[in-house]
Formats: sequence, structure tokens, C-alpha cells
Amino acid sequence: MRLALLGCGNVGSEVVRLMRTRGEELAARVGEPVEIAGIAVRRLDRDRSHLPVGPEMFTNDALGLVKREDVDIVVEVAGGIEPARTWITTALGEGKSVVTANKALLAEDGPALSAAAKAGGADLYYEAAAAAAIPLMRPLRESLHGDTINRVLGIVNGTTNYILSKMSQSGASFEEALGEATELGYAEADPTADVDNYDAAAKAALIASLAFHTHIDLGEVYREGIRGVSAADIASAAAEGRVVKPLCIATREADGVSVRVHPAMIPRNHPLANVNGAYNAVFVEAESAGRLMFYGAGAGGTETASAVLGDIVAVARNKRGGITAFPPEAAYQDLPVKPIGEARTRYHVSLDVVDEPGVLARVAATFAHHGVSLATVHQSGRGDDAQLVVVTHTAADKQLSDTVDELSQLTSVHQVTSVMRVEGE
Amino acid sequence: MRLALLGCGNVGSEVVRLMRTRGEELAARVGEPVEIAGIAVRRLDRDRSHLPVGPEMFTNDALGLVKREDVDIVVEVAGGIEPARTWITTALGEGKSVVTANKALLAEDGPALSAAAKAGGADLYYEAAAAAAIPLMRPLRESLHGDTINRVLGIVNGTTNYILSKMSQSGASFEEALGEATELGYAEADPTADVDNYDAAAKAALIASLAFHTHIDLGEVYREGIRGVSAADIASAAAEGRVVKPLCIATREADGVSVRVHPAMIPRNHPLANVNGAYNAVFVEAESAGRLMFYGAGAGGTETASAVLGDIVAVARNKRGGITAFPPEAAYQDLPVKPIGEARTRYHVSLDVVDEPGVLARVAATFAHHGVSLATVHQSGRGDDAQLVVVTHTAADKQLSDTVDELSQLTSVHQVTSVMRVEGE
Repeated sequence: MRLALLGCGNVGSEVVRLMRTRGEELAARVGEPVEIAGIAVRRLDRDRSHLPVGPEMFTNDALGLVKREDVDIVVEVAGGIEPARTWITTALGEGKSVVTANKALLAEDGPALSAAAKAGGADLYYEAAAAAAIPLMRPLRESLHGDTINRVLGIVNGTTNYILSKMSQSGASFEEALGEATELGYAEADPTADVDNYDAAAKAALIASLAFHTHIDLGEVYREGIRGVSAADIASAAAEGRVVKPLCIATREADGVSVRVHPAMIPRNHPLANVNGAYNAVFVEAESAGRLMFYGAGAGGTETASAVLGDIVAVARNKRGGITAFPPEAAYQDLPVKPIGEARTRYHVSLDVVDEPGVLARVAATFAHHGVSLATVHQSGRGDDAQLVVVTHTAADKQLSDTVDELSQLTSVHQVTSVMRVEGE
Repeated sequence: MRLALLGCGNVGSEVVRLMRTRGEELAARVGEPVEIAGIAVRRLDRDRSHLPVGPEMFTNDALGLVKREDVDIVVEVAGGIEPARTWITTALGEGKSVVTANKALLAEDGPALSAAAKAGGADLYYEAAAAAAIPLMRPLRESLHGDTINRVLGIVNGTTNYILSKMSQSGASFEEALGEATELGYAEADPTADVDNYDAAAKAALIASLAFHTHIDLGEVYREGIRGVSAADIASAAAEGRVVKPLCIATREADGVSVRVHPAMIPRNHPLANVNGAYNAVFVEAESAGRLMFYGAGAGGTETASAVLGDIVAVARNKRGGITAFPPEAAYQDLPVKPIGEARTRYHVSLDVVDEPGVLARVAATFAHHGVSLATVHQSGRGDDAQLVVVTHTAADKQLSDTVDELSQLTSVHQVTSVMRVEGE
């Protein structure tokens, strides 16, 4: 069994190294040796002498490598939409099974790739795409096959979780925590993909598609980053027994599904509340199985390579048995995706108000006017420096944003200082 | 596709109910309807009118049902060794795939059943056996196929976890907590299988076999129950930032594997420390994937039925595709199981001592004499009522038990009041 490796960065190098050091074990699990036929890279002139393969293995003709007759399996860890899409589609078209960690491409083009796999009689595995080493695809696709998933709450980005954990533990501001994350290598020089939740949105699309057996397009995921989270928000959450976490939330209701990524408050005793630093976890609520959680490292070259190797063994075994184990039927339900205005949850609203008789009544009446009922109200401070913290019962996003618009116009309200969703209660 | 259901207790009834209410969804996932051909029960005269199947479906001839020509899949949820073994072996011999939740049988006879599945060209799935609804078998068998698992720490019994959680939260004694668990239905009238860890030992054998690709016999699992855990142990653990949990521990070392179930102390910030009440979790340390955890309900009819249904969909899909997806190759490694005396971990030892000059030195010298080095020593109390709490560095079980024997003979030691292992550090 021979494979083409497309891409040789962090993950690719680790795949090469592991294929060598674990060669015997892999052969025992597959039933025959699995070898690397060639490695496609963008730049041939880079020094790769630290890798346990000869220079003749490298090529910059990825498509040529994919088409080579001695290649049975294609492993794509280059990332990006093109040319990765062409490589993968070509491989599947020739009946070569594909292992990929490319969440962006899967979120954009999942159904077309699944169709290509089906047409080519090949496997398409992507355990590493949503949560690196955390086994998630197989549990969602197979273990829970007899169940109905109603809700998924996940922490699926290590950078944002590191930053918010840091802010919670030390009281640091967002900028301070981001600075530290960058220094330690947890955040990239341009942190946009992480802190603005583009990365999490792609993962949310993948996870929700699998959980609900439907197709969620990346564009259908509502997205808010974590730049707006303040030390005050975190302190305010803590005062009510909650912590702020970067969540992806996917829910299935009678009239459709809702998928969103944004910072949110969760109760301190929720299993996700103790998932800190660069760790990730996905919490699933299923009708019969109840509450499940999958926890582990959500990023990292070695961790991602572990998931890629697991997929390589799986598709190699399938190929040896002449089968494809994942008939790509996942999206048999065509569920409508609800706009964010119809998403229902609870809210934590902080306001700077004038401390005068009747202010609380006027604020409460504004919520009531839009049909939003209140769970708790706390007032603190005095005079011109008074604050109100309101936690609502469940309401639609539109009801809440209309309430906030009207609150901002009250003369006794200086400012609505923050609005954050409350989940997991 | 038609299945024979063997057993109709808590789990079986729920399987019947779910097959009916989720019939359409199951059919979509399999690609054709899956129907119940018959249900084997021990007593035909029991009232089962609450189940959505007619009385003609029930039989007390399980073996006859297994052999019926219109049966494609056999689902065994009756439990026990015989006649379940005969039913399953017969089914597999006829090429009928089997789904079972029978941990006792799998722990006793796993390799023979796998061989029977292979010989018959049938699937043998048992996701529900080790941790009910928590997807564990597939992640261990498939997702981590490219990785090497070095250690598994699990809380795999809800009754013992409920009792120890209760003791930790309220300071209750074992008897008080057991009484409450019995009242609430978390413990059975005869709690032996749970509190003496027979149930956990069978699960540990299954989990370790899958994790290490070897066969662990039930008799090779070292087992201690939780009856000996005192409120003092829990307080002593808490004083050092630890909690007492009912653990199953499987480790792979250069010279073999070690599998044991017993109460142990773990750090309060370990992910397993927050797994409370009837919840279960399995924590895995893999070479590349790092630290992973799987969390969920480890028991319950509905939860177990969810896992059984997941397996039914999987084997039905395989059957439809003319394949078996799990070539039963798991135990390709024949790793020796080390005796408990060679198991290495850390220990928390409490002693009642005479408060006199030199007692600490004599105690420390006794540990040193057996090559056990100390991490911390705390003395409390005065005069004839003094206590020492010693936490050791890693040592072999034999070294520690020899140390304890010698400590008991010291004239300045009244009694070694407790010895508990410390894990997860």
C-alpha cells in the first residue's frame, strides 16, 4: 500500500516521522506495509534533511504525484481551497481514497467532495479537520448512529480558549492575554483567523453537518469573535458563578437548525467550564445517550498527525478489504438553517445607568415590552456610576437586540456596556 | 434487514421502543428498513403490553430464533455467560452479525468470540459493553489506530463514583453514602458487583485489550473494592489537593502491561476529578494525540440502548454493503501482564504514631530501607494521638507493601491506618 503526501509543514513532517517510527505497528494493523510513494511540496529547495526520507521523495508536481499508478491513498495536509480541491477531486475520481485535515475546503465544498468519493468508490476521511486528535467524526457519524443529537456545544479553538482562560485566571485584558498567547506561540502573528472565529466557524459547520445529518454551509454559521470580551465581562460572569468561553453552538429545533460561534457565559460546574488553555472539548446532548463530552488537544502538529495516521490505517484497511466503510450518506436530511435573529438562548446584559428612582422599573419594562422575561437583576454602584446586570430567560436574538436598541435610548441609561449569551443551563 | 433481540429487560425494552420511534431515521441511515423479527425472553407470561410490538413477537426459544432464516442480525442484551455464549457463537457461525452489551462474556471469552466472527465472516460489535453510551470502542479501535496508547485512567462504574462523590461532598461515611445510593436506585440491593469492583474489572479488561491491542483476561485484572475508603481518607486527600475516585488504570511499560481497579487519589485539577455522581469518563494518554477524555453516562437503559442502536446501524450498513468493517485483528500483540507487585505508582500512607523524638526519622528510614523515596510528610496531632501522612514518589507495589509490613512492627507506630494509591500526576 503506497500513499502520496501532499504538504510537508508541521503536520506533514510529523506524518513522515510517525510513518517511519511506527512502521511495524501500522503494518500489523493494516495487514501489510504502508509506504510513502512521494511527498509534494511547494518549494523543493528547502532543507528537509532532518526528515527520515531521501531527497528523491520530494516533488513540486502534486497533481502528477496524485495520478501516479503506484499511489493508492492520497493524504492532503497542505490546506487552502485550491489547488487542494483539484488534487482531492482528481484522487477520488481515480478511486484513490483521501485523508485530509482541510476544514476550510470541507466546510466550503463538503457535499461535492462526498459525491466525488461516492462516484469514485473511494473513502474520504477527515478526523483531523474539526478537532485535531480528539476523536469526534467517528463518534458523531457512527457511534451515535442510532440516536438523535439535539445540541452540540464545543470549544474548538485553542487560541481563543487560551486567551479567555488567561483573562479569567489573571484578570488580564484581551490585549494583554493576546500578547502573551502570541509570545508563547499559541497565537499567530496575524491572529484574525482565530480570534475572529473564522477557524471555529469552519469547524462548527463540519460538526453540525455530521451531528444533524444535513449540510451546513460555512456562510450559514453566525460568527462573532472574542475581541469585544472585557475583563469586566469576565468579572461579571464570575460574580454570577459563570465563566466566559469561546463556544460553537449547534442546536436542532422543530423548525430548523441554528449554528453559531461566539463568546458565551456557561455555569462554572458545566463540564466545558474546566476545559482550559489550549485544550478543546465538544459536548453533545443526544436524545438517548444523554450528555457526552470529548476532550483533548485541538491543535498541534503531532496531535493532528495522530488523527491523520488513524485515518490512514482505516482507509488502508478498507482498501485491502475492497470496501469503503463510510458510504457518504451523511446529509440525507435537508434541514433549514435559522437566521441568527431566530436563535433562542439566554442573555447577560450589563448597563451603565443613572441611579435614580424608577430606573430599574423602566429597564425591566423595556425588556417586557419585547417579550423578554428576566431571571435575575443586580444593581451596584451609586449616583452617576451605577451599573445594572440583567440575566434573561430564553428569548430570540431579535427580541434581545430590539430590547437593547430601545434601552440605549432611555435617558436613565448611559450605555449598554455589554451583551453576552448564556449557554449550557 | 431483520434482527433477533435476545433479552427484553431495561435495555431490550428501550431498544424495542427506539426501533419503533426512530424507524424512519434508522432506515435512512442504513439504506433500508430494519425490523425486529422476534424477541427471546425467559418468561413468556410477563405483561409486555406497554411495548409497541404484538405478543406473537415473543418466544422463549432463543436459539431457535437465532437460527431462523429470516434473521440477519442478532442483538444480545440478556447478559450472563451461558446461554448467551451459545447464542452468539451460533449466530456468528451462521454468518449473522452480532451486537452485544455483555461485558462479562467478552471479558471471559473475547478472543474466542472474535475468532468465531472472523470464521463466520460476521461482525461482532460491542460499543455498549464498556461504558454504555460513551463512544469508546470506535475511538480506541479506529481513531487511535495510528497512535500508541500508553495509559488509560477511567471511572467506569456509576455506583462507586456516586458513593465516593457523595462522601467527598458531604463528609458521609461509606455506609451512609451506600444507603443513599441504594435508596435512589444507583446501587442494587446486593451491591457486591459494583462496590467490590467486579463490574469495573470486566470493563477494565475490555478497555485495556482494545487500547493495547492485546488480550487481557479478567483474571489478570488486579481488583480492590471501595468498602475500605473512609471519610478520613477523603479528608486527608482533600487536605493535599486531591480527590478519591474509583479508577481503572491500565498502563503499558517496556516489560508488559498492568491493569488494575481500585480507589485512588487524583489531583483536584485532573479532568477526571470533576466527573461526579453517576457520570463516567475514560482518560487516555497516547504518544502523539496526547491527553484525551471521553465523558458521559456510563449506565442506564436508554443510554445503553443508544449505543446498541448505533451498533445495529453499523452492522446493518456493513451487511448491506456485503462487508465486515472490523476485521477482528485487535489482539495482534501478546503482551505479558505484570503481577500487581510490579505495578508502579505513588502512595498516600496514613499512620497513627507516638509523638516522640525520632519517630519521623524512623518512619522515613523504613521507607528508605525498601527503596521508596518520599515526596511529602505531614505530621498532625500530639502525644499518643499523633498522625503522619506520607506521600511517596513512584515505587513498585511490592516495595510499598513490604514497607507497610515493617512500619506496622515499629514500636512508635500504633497502626498504619490507610494506604491509597495516587494516580494521574
